[in-house]
Amino acid sequence: MIDGNIAAEILQKVHRERPLVHHLTNYVTMGDCASITVSVGALPVMAQAEEEVEEMVSAARAAVINTGTLSPERARAMLLMGVKARKMNIPVIYDPVGVGATTFRTGEALKLLHEIKPSIIKGNRAEVAFLAGKTGAEIRGIEALSGAGEPLEVAKLLRETLDYEGVVIITGPVDLIYDGKRTARVNNGHALLPLVVGSGCMASSVIAAFAAVERDYFRAATAALATLGVAAEVAVQAAGNKPLGPAGFKTRWLDTLYFLSEEELCGKIKLNIS
Amino acid sequence: MIDGNIAAEILQKVHRERPLVHHLTNYVTMGDCASITVSVGALPVMAQAEEEVEEMVSAARAAVINTGTLSPERARAMLLMGVKARKMNIPVIYDPVGVGATTFRTGEALKLLHEIKPSIIKGNRAEVAFLAGKTGAEIRGIEALSGAGEPLEVAKLLRETLDYEGVVIITGPVDLIYDGKRTARVNNGHALLPLVVGSGCMASSVIAAFAAVERDYFRAATAALATLGVAAEVAVQAAGNKPLGPAGFKTRWLDTLYFLSEEELCGKIKLNIS
Amino acid sequence: MIDGNIAAEILQKVHRERPLVHHLTNYVTMGDCASITVSVGALPVMAQAEEEVEEMVSAARAAVINTGTLSPERARAMLLMGVKARKMNIPVIYDPVGVGATTFRTGEALKLLHEIKPSIIKGNRAEVAFLAGKTGAEIRGIEALSGAGEPLEVAKLLRETLDYEGVVIITGPVDLIYDGKRTARVNNGHALLPLVVGSGCMASSVIAAFAAVERDYFRAATAALATLGVAAEVAVQAAGNKPLGPAGFKTRWLDTLYFLSEEELCGKIKLNIS
Repeated sequence: MIDGNIAAEILQKVHRERPLVHHLTNYVTMGDCASITVSVGALPVMAQAEEEVEEMVSAARAAVINTGTLSPERARAMLLMGVKARKMNIPVIYDPVGVGATTFRTGEALKLLHEIKPSIIKGNRAEVAFLAGKTGAEIRGIEALSGAGEPLEVAKLLRETLDYEGVVIITGPVDLIYDGKRTARVNNGHALLPLVVGSGCMASSVIAAFAAVERDYFRAATAALATLGVAAEVAVQAAGNKPLGPAGFKTRWLDTLYFLSEEELCGKIKLNIS
Repeated sequence: MIDGNIAAEILQKVHRERPLVHHLTNYVTMGDCASITVSVGALPVMAQAEEEVEEMVSAARAAVINTGTLSPERARAMLLMGVKARKMNIPVIYDPVGVGATTFRTGEALKLLHEIKPSIIKGNRAEVAFLAGKTGAEIRGIEALSGAGEPLEVAKLLRETLDYEGVVIITGPVDLIYDGKRTARVNNGHALLPLVVGSGCMASSVIAAFAAVERDYFRAATAALATLGVAAEVAVQAAGNKPLGPAGFKTRWLDTLYFLSEEELCGKIKLNIS
Repeated sequence: MIDGNIAAEILQKVHRERPLVHHLTNYVTMGDCASITVSVGALPVMAQAEEEVEEMVSAARAAVINTGTLSPERARAMLLMGVKARKMNIPVIYDPVGVGATTFRTGEALKLLHEIKPSIIKGNRAEVAFLAGKTGAEIRGIEALSGAGEPLEVAKLLRETLDYEGVVIITGPVDLIYDGKRTARVNNGHALLPLVVGSGCMASSVIAAFAAVERDYFRAATAALATLGVAAEVAVQAAGNKPLGPAGFKTRWLDTLYFLSEEELCGKIKLNIS
């Protein structure tokens, strides 16, 4: 139901239709999110004032909400934008960066989740566990440490606890995508990816671009994460024996994604669907 | 009246005098604007609080105003800074990013334009058409699509409609510069440039640096855009057969600009003046 | 008392313990500060809302305060975060970017300094001279020009004038570190470093990471600056005959730091302690 050919088709559709993706994201990785949106073939927009986010998202085909560097004003703009996007029936990708780290962040993140009911929630194990009310998880900064539980269980818990009906993504060495019925595990990627600051935020941009052109969000999310993982593998492979650090890798990852061929994607994709 | 030798002279003057360029720009490409300001030999400053922009711009020799990620607070700081810069008689480069996309953005952008009367307005065809009150133009995010009309007509319309007396730049595959009497068309550049997020914002930084040292802003703007275009061409040429994506190209473009020689600039510049 | 072996030990401790470093820094170089924190082996966090900075810094082991793009709201968050960090007895690195450039900036910077009493103050000669009340210094944008006086004298003056008891760092071609008794001069570095926008801000991130694991902040700061300087030298050396501009150098600097070996650090470190 989802394989390399389908992923390649969605990617081509992104290139053909160049959907506009509206972001309300953090200040740290904003530029990188815009860049990867272009690399994957879509168009980014980053308007953030409460005065214009509803009108701006009306022109978009997908929306990203990312709670890194959250503030009360930002949360208000996110709410306006997210609710409007849902009314328009375009996909909203929700990336609750840092949830669980402070009372403020957790409170705002939960409020946004309840009021927007995003189409896709994407976080690491600890972030999603926190949203689901599990308190044993340990977070350091933006990094999940331990105690969050097995990914599929965490995803199920989130849907049950919050009565959430969308797609849940739990990122990690193996990315898990779950929509209540189907489970996908993406085995693509590279150890350098988590060393790129913002690689998670950037993944949300690409998931949004894919969901903009593919209404089956489970498929869109799975294809997006596989595409990003394959691009990372191809980038490292193309570097040959040259040692790659996070900074050089980031540039190569973005450009490999830009050039990624159907053959490479189909040949390297490693999915597990159940 | 403007050719490769004159462009090279202005570039050298930037290197020699290292003018300070004050930016009030968007959050997405702020770091890149600062970087290209250094690459071209000038100094960036990015102070943004209403409490200090007037004093900061007093030490500068040019000012950039860019309406990407605009907010009411930001617009207030822009107004203070722009008016002060005009009183000091230093060039103000105005980049109305995203105008036409929302009522808020268009309203604020027009107000800033009327109250500041910037020395140079730089936008793509659709943005300038919107400022001129032409409503047929279509914008998607920050990208002009169609219906805006022939560049020179749009530039003329802007000057007439708004009773504007400065230099108008309309960017595109061929950049047009118009000051009411003279028209320049810059045929330098590369297809990768529009794929670099912020390349337009970065162009404004370089135009500002050139205008800081050359009081004929028509000349300064033409020389700046030609210099950026030649740097892009040299960067791609130097890469040889290696395929270049937007990310790798950006690094090479910045560094080619940093190293650009008088010979390269004179040898490759392609201008059409009338 | 501090040499290559000790610097290498501290660097290894950073890699082993991966301390969380909370930043309240400027919008221009935020992403780069996060990236270098990862490159040196630590973890960045950049929460900035007044509502959460105290709780966030409670999980951190060091704090960075940088006054570039300062605003009244930002200053309030810095005060909350800095005071909390000092109560927790974790190191606070204070980088008074642009102090002296405007009345607002200077006033806020001095207030923060007085109320937080940071563990380490790091600035260029003119910035530190301004904090010390010396008015002959000239600043253009973020660049110190002249008239600030001999670095060690400036450092002493700061401690005396403000009754400051922490470590003072004055950056420049030779970095000076002074704690009232000991003076270190770091002779490592490269002419490309000051051409990288944010290299100073990034240095503060690395100093913070080192101070997080080494309670002798004089040692930590000296080791951090030497490590950054050696990484710059190794990066340039590895490029061979290839001409390096600021953009290409930045990527290589970050990745050289990521891979830096004990041997390279010990073999190249050039310190002068008295």
